[in-house]
Amino acid sequence: MKIHVPELPMIMWVVLISSIPLNNLLLKNIEPYYNIGRGQHNKLSWSRAAAEEAEAVVSISCSGHGRAALDGMFIQDKPICQCNSCYGGDDCSVLLPDCVVDAHSGNPMFLEPYWMKNAASSAVVVAGWHRLGYTYEGDSYMSRELEKVIQKLHAVVGNANATGKYILFGAGATQLLNAAIMSLSHPPSQHSDDDTGNRLLRTNVVCKMQTEVYNSLNFKWGGDASSWKNKSDSSTENFIEVVTSPSNPEGELREPVLEGSSVKTIYDYAYYWPHYTGISSPANTDLMIFTLSKLTGHGGSRFGWAFVKDKAVYERMANYLEVNSVGASQDAQLRALVLLRTVLKDDGREFFGFGHKTLRERWVMLSRSLSKSKRFSLQKLSPHNCSFFNQVTDPSPAYGWVKCVREEEHDCAEVLKSAGILGKKGSYFSADDKYVRLNLIGNQDDFDLLLRRIDALVSQE
Amino acid sequence: MKIHVPELPMIMWVVLISSIPLNNLLLKNIEPYYNIGRGQHNKLSWSRAAAEEAEAVVSISCSGHGRAALDGMFIQDKPICQCNSCYGGDDCSVLLPDCVVDAHSGNPMFLEPYWMKNAASSAVVVAGWHRLGYTYEGDSYMSRELEKVIQKLHAVVGNANATGKYILFGAGATQLLNAAIMSLSHPPSQHSDDDTGNRLLRTNVVCKMQTEVYNSLNFKWGGDASSWKNKSDSSTENFIEVVTSPSNPEGELREPVLEGSSVKTIYDYAYYWPHYTGISSPANTDLMIFTLSKLTGHGGSRFGWAFVKDKAVYERMANYLEVNSVGASQDAQLRALVLLRTVLKDDGREFFGFGHKTLRERWVMLSRSLSKSKRFSLQKLSPHNCSFFNQVTDPSPAYGWVKCVREEEHDCAEVLKSAGILGKKGSYFSADDKYVRLNLIGNQDDFDLLLRRIDALVSQE
Repeated sequence: MKIHVPELPMIMWVVLISSIPLNNLLLKNIEPYYNIGRGQHNKLSWSRAAAEEAEAVVSISCSGHGRAALDGMFIQDKPICQCNSCYGGDDCSVLLPDCVVDAHSGNPMFLEPYWMKNAASSAVVVAGWHRLGYTYEGDSYMSRELEKVIQKLHAVVGNANATGKYILFGAGATQLLNAAIMSLSHPPSQHSDDDTGNRLLRTNVVCKMQTEVYNSLNFKWGGDASSWKNKSDSSTENFIEVVTSPSNPEGELREPVLEGSSVKTIYDYAYYWPHYTGISSPANTDLMIFTLSKLTGHGGSRFGWAFVKDKAVYERMANYLEVNSVGASQDAQLRALVLLRTVLKDDGREFFGFGHKTLRERWVMLSRSLSKSKRFSLQKLSPHNCSFFNQVTDPSPAYGWVKCVREEEHDCAEVLKSAGILGKKGSYFSADDKYVRLNLIGNQDDFDLLLRRIDALVSQE
Repeated sequence: MKIHVPELPMIMWVVLISSIPLNNLLLKNIEPYYNIGRGQHNKLSWSRAAAEEAEAVVSISCSGHGRAALDGMFIQDKPICQCNSCYGGDDCSVLLPDCVVDAHSGNPMFLEPYWMKNAASSAVVVAGWHRLGYTYEGDSYMSRELEKVIQKLHAVVGNANATGKYILFGAGATQLLNAAIMSLSHPPSQHSDDDTGNRLLRTNVVCKMQTEVYNSLNFKWGGDASSWKNKSDSSTENFIEVVTSPSNPEGELREPVLEGSSVKTIYDYAYYWPHYTGISSPANTDLMIFTLSKLTGHGGSRFGWAFVKDKAVYERMANYLEVNSVGASQDAQLRALVLLRTVLKDDGREFFGFGHKTLRERWVMLSRSLSKSKRFSLQKLSPHNCSFFNQVTDPSPAYGWVKCVREEEHDCAEVLKSAGILGKKGSYFSADDKYVRLNLIGNQDDFDLLLRRIDALVSQE
């Protein structure tokens, strides 16, 4: 068999052969630097194929109105676009005329442009044999490095005083809230573990949804905190009040309604970040819950943390988390570590700056549109002094809390729905259905369409 | 300002300039292939730095007796080795003479060599903006692609019949077991949600540890199933029996102890995979739980799934999982997707072949060592016909279940501990403390040292 050698002019042979050692020299200058950290240029081995695959999927544009994902829908081994609500077509380029805009969920998509801009530092690459087994160093379910980053974040933002408090990781604020309620309602009063016939004295939890599933001996749903305000002082019953501050949906900083020795308080600080409110001072309460979802937008990761002052409360929470799910996912913890390190690159200036600016602009636009209306009103919010931005910051809440003013319009969510806007009913938040919550932290498409529909509605008045 | 141009011989300038278009030509041949799938060679952008960092950390050898990790301990920004038990020194090269071998945990490390060999296909690369928000397509908490891969895996292995059953994802078998118990013990009997003074009739759960934390109205810990065998037939009480098959710690295929209309059964099939036992036929029970932990070794990911036949039971479980933690982590789901796709590359031949061979060899060695002993005995296991390997397979259990035969040795874990072996006490499994469980699914170092200590102990008899 004859091997075909292409005919080249003599000068090209000289160039070709001469360039081999030069290229080798260039490569050799790169190879030995197997240093740790991002920014070197090394030769890749096992991670290359997965990196190429991830970049290829991500590079599918979906017209800017959707996205393809590695773990999304595939058709014939090709990932397909999942379009934002109200967009359709193979490449999401078609605006669907009569669709309903999604302002119902609390899906935190508004930070997507920040993560796309900071793609290199926020990417996660993990080997197949990374962290087999259940625990980190010291048989812990918690990454010590992640704990350090979280502590640093709070120090930089100034929104929580973690000194002298135990830290716990959980599958989002939800699991931590469950753990806290379980812990604070234990031990139950002396009669309540009696199943032989005595009356049970249980803890009243002022927080909906938990007790419907658990049906626990230890606690029951006690209704709105305000309805217990006068009774709790003299009551022989125990209370747990969950204080969400800033509140959901209004976005106001909140204090507990109940007080006294029979009351224990859990603080949900999911929204106590500079995107959503001015940071007045570091929170320094006994049981504080934070979550990645509303901080970075990664709600599906299911990761949150709690600071707990009392050792016994902490230990019962830790026990609950172990028995409930053997700790928080290590994959979620690794993701959180990389994301929060990115946030901290410049002490959070770019990240929180982008988040606040985005929500501030949306709030201004929504307020302006609704200010022309006599049919709908919007919650009033005040500027706050923000120690993080070192200035007074104007309101930038996560949600619009809209009221249908007309007496005959009892179900505001229905009113908006007939105008093509899907919001969340007031009664979901133990409020009147004359109110409806509109999501302002979704993606830009959802907000743009929301505003367009609101404008159309108001112009009809 | 004068720009300095280095002086080169004329011929070098010719080579340098001539090689530029050639190199460009080579690069251009690579760039356009932005195809999906692993194995192309494309130019990387945002993922490169993270990939380099991950490879650099993983390349730290730790003498083969430990590992460094991206989310492990760092000293002065350098990741340090975390050594296997009984190894020490900066690079884990020192065998510590008097240490206690860890055979206590059930840390599934034995598959590490498989994952290292299949590094390219099992790596996960994820962008910072991948899956912001809470849900997959169709507002689901579950990745449809992962569901497909799980269904395919069961079809290939032949260990579960998923036809006509609902599937649920959870944070490991633990959370799914909790969900199943909550669901099956609901609604409680007519009297049990009464907190005004009537006697409560609760469901007895034959499964330790859950009820200690929950203290639920719906269920209580009912003790060993065997102790209820005769009583349950005529009892007015309700029972939930959790059947782990193969059993932990013995490794035997199991059937329920209790039966009758007042009994509901949950099957924990964590170990029903070809590593651990012959697959006799597809499991086809009403509530089946599986977990990634013992299947692939990724216990810290906290991912498991359940097949549920009854629609109402399934719906209550789904509700529990949503209220408890808003579904399973999407990061864990992505990892599971990539890992299980790797397992399925050759229909699981290499993966399960490696797993079974490794555990079989360990079992043979442990059996041989203990066969010389009159002081210790080991559980007896029979070969099983395995439809997956299409042959009779010899025992390859996850644990050794050792008995101290001498009458005066009541605490077998203590006996082994004084010989430098840390096992798990029999009473942890509701058995006599004359028994102790030894982990056979740990890393090779742990097993090698375990065997050495056992041999030394037996030779002293």
